[in-house]
Amino acid sequence: MNRLRIFADLAAPPEVLALLQAGIKGHELVLPETPVSSVLAKAGRDPQFAAVDIAFGQPDPEAIAEATRLKWVHISSSGITRYDNPQFRALAAERKIAVSNSAGVYNEACAVHALSFMTAQARQLPRALKSHAVYGTADWNQLRGSCGTLRDETVLILGYGAIGKRLAELLRPFDVKLTAYRRKPRGDEEVPVITERLLPDALAEAHHIVNILPDSAETRQFFDAARFAAIRPGAIFYNIGRGTTVDQDALLGALRSGKIGAAWLDVTDPELLPDEHPLRKEPNCFITPHIAGGHTDEAKTLVRHFLKNFDRFVRGEPLLDRVM
Amino acid sequence: MNRLRIFADLAAPPEVLALLQAGIKGHELVLPETPVSSVLAKAGRDPQFAAVDIAFGQPDPEAIAEATRLKWVHISSSGITRYDNPQFRALAAERKIAVSNSAGVYNEACAVHALSFMTAQARQLPRALKSHAVYGTADWNQLRGSCGTLRDETVLILGYGAIGKRLAELLRPFDVKLTAYRRKPRGDEEVPVITERLLPDALAEAHHIVNILPDSAETRQFFDAARFAAIRPGAIFYNIGRGTTVDQDALLGALRSGKIGAAWLDVTDPELLPDEHPLRKEPNCFITPHIAGGHTDEAKTLVRHFLKNFDRFVRGEPLLDRVM
Repeated sequence: MNRLRIFADLAAPPEVLALLQAGIKGHELVLPETPVSSVLAKAGRDPQFAAVDIAFGQPDPEAIAEATRLKWVHISSSGITRYDNPQFRALAAERKIAVSNSAGVYNEACAVHALSFMTAQARQLPRALKSHAVYGTADWNQLRGSCGTLRDETVLILGYGAIGKRLAELLRPFDVKLTAYRRKPRGDEEVPVITERLLPDALAEAHHIVNILPDSAETRQFFDAARFAAIRPGAIFYNIGRGTTVDQDALLGALRSGKIGAAWLDVTDPELLPDEHPLRKEPNCFITPHIAGGHTDEAKTLVRHFLKNFDRFVRGEPLLDRVM
Repeated sequence: MNRLRIFADLAAPPEVLALLQAGIKGHELVLPETPVSSVLAKAGRDPQFAAVDIAFGQPDPEAIAEATRLKWVHISSSGITRYDNPQFRALAAERKIAVSNSAGVYNEACAVHALSFMTAQARQLPRALKSHAVYGTADWNQLRGSCGTLRDETVLILGYGAIGKRLAELLRPFDVKLTAYRRKPRGDEEVPVITERLLPDALAEAHHIVNILPDSAETRQFFDAARFAAIRPGAIFYNIGRGTTVDQDALLGALRSGKIGAAWLDVTDPELLPDEHPLRKEPNCFITPHIAGGHTDEAKTLVRHFLKNFDRFVRGEPLLDRVM
């Protein structure tokens, strides 16, 4: 195979870039003039981009359109919002540009993050860690009695991709009743899958609603006032997908009215949610700042995942986490 | 079978006492003149106690010695400290009094509580829920990068009874390396078991040390300065057993020196730990007020568990959770 030019645009320490360099030995690594700050930041235009074969990072779709040699784009995030539109899909199809993402890098951490939310809620950790209730008092009995175990409860996972699948595995020993909502079931899911038609029933039944929907034209404000109204009273709402899939005014209303028992959000719209945002004042709204996918040595995991795919690309094998 | 007199001494609402009454139909329920406040509170002496056949609750060992008709004591907690001594064991053996506990009632909640601690630590929830770090900043990268998934980490469970076994089940999908410490291995454990001899090696290796040891003469101050010194630097220490098994000064020292990365405690000595106790000021010490076993309808679960055992007792079948 010819010497390939790989444009890698990601925030990584020197030793991780060295790992990347070593992994593509015999090919050429092209680094941007100004590196990006995070895996979700859009890269600036770079003059070198027009002549590369492979792009790893968050390349600008317009730059992709102009890079006539480009054969493969490996996105450094799980979300592909920037590329998930008919124009870009048409471009990728026409130019035969393969597009893969880094879902495999974030599954595990995101699923564990979701489970940490669910068990923290079940065990009332935010309240319990602050409590100085004395054994046997009414306060203590109230706290202790409001704890749960998830057993026999119903969990609805919306968006059953790699993260949802892994969360289902982590939940298996808990003896919960699991259902997944998926726009297009594939038939290979390990849990019962429902589509749009049965969603109102599923929302009305679930004790835990775990939203892992990606951001796209179809999912924007997916959880609107009508959907929150359809939820089982007192259910717990989790969002570890994208903030844009939730109408936050409707969520606020559902929290204030007690329609939902609590909300655990790793994603919001915008991010960071401003200090003065009313959701920040809700006692049953718990927010982490979009860290669900994070883990020690994340940049290294990203690069390793890319290199695994690079070897496949060079050998002409099917790519991992291919999305287009 | 004769009409049995059952002394039930537990804090339960009227509808749960009604459930108990219905479950022992044909036999006599004897309620104490002054009911206890919690499942761990020692009952006062009650003149009716001398003539009962069965005691359910936390009966006074001296009262048991005087109750000559007593054939079975069902303890309303998982811990049996009050009874776990040579004198009482000799009495029970001599008088052929069966003793069972309520371990089956608390397993599930305790195991989920422990897992909530472990995942909250892995995902840095106490810090993350307070963080307003902006995407891509150094603060945010630091927080995100300090999160983990438990994968490939080593977990040492000390005290491998019903709770430890259940925790091991919940941990199975996480791909951790599990080891259990048990004074007397039975050979039927599903995980590798070590005893005293290999404990120093296991402490030096484990990323997570989950202490579920019961309180007894042998376990008091089990985690002393020497054992904390033997721990892998940076390991996380959890206690959901009994507070008395830990030398809290040694724990404080281990936290302050950074020898252990964090401590998550559901039990302390004393309980409630005073507001001014230095452990309360340690930023990496997280305390819940002895609620690990708690769950909705706990009193009902306790009564149901007793009734299941009562049926066995009446039919002459082996008791569940028999401890003596």
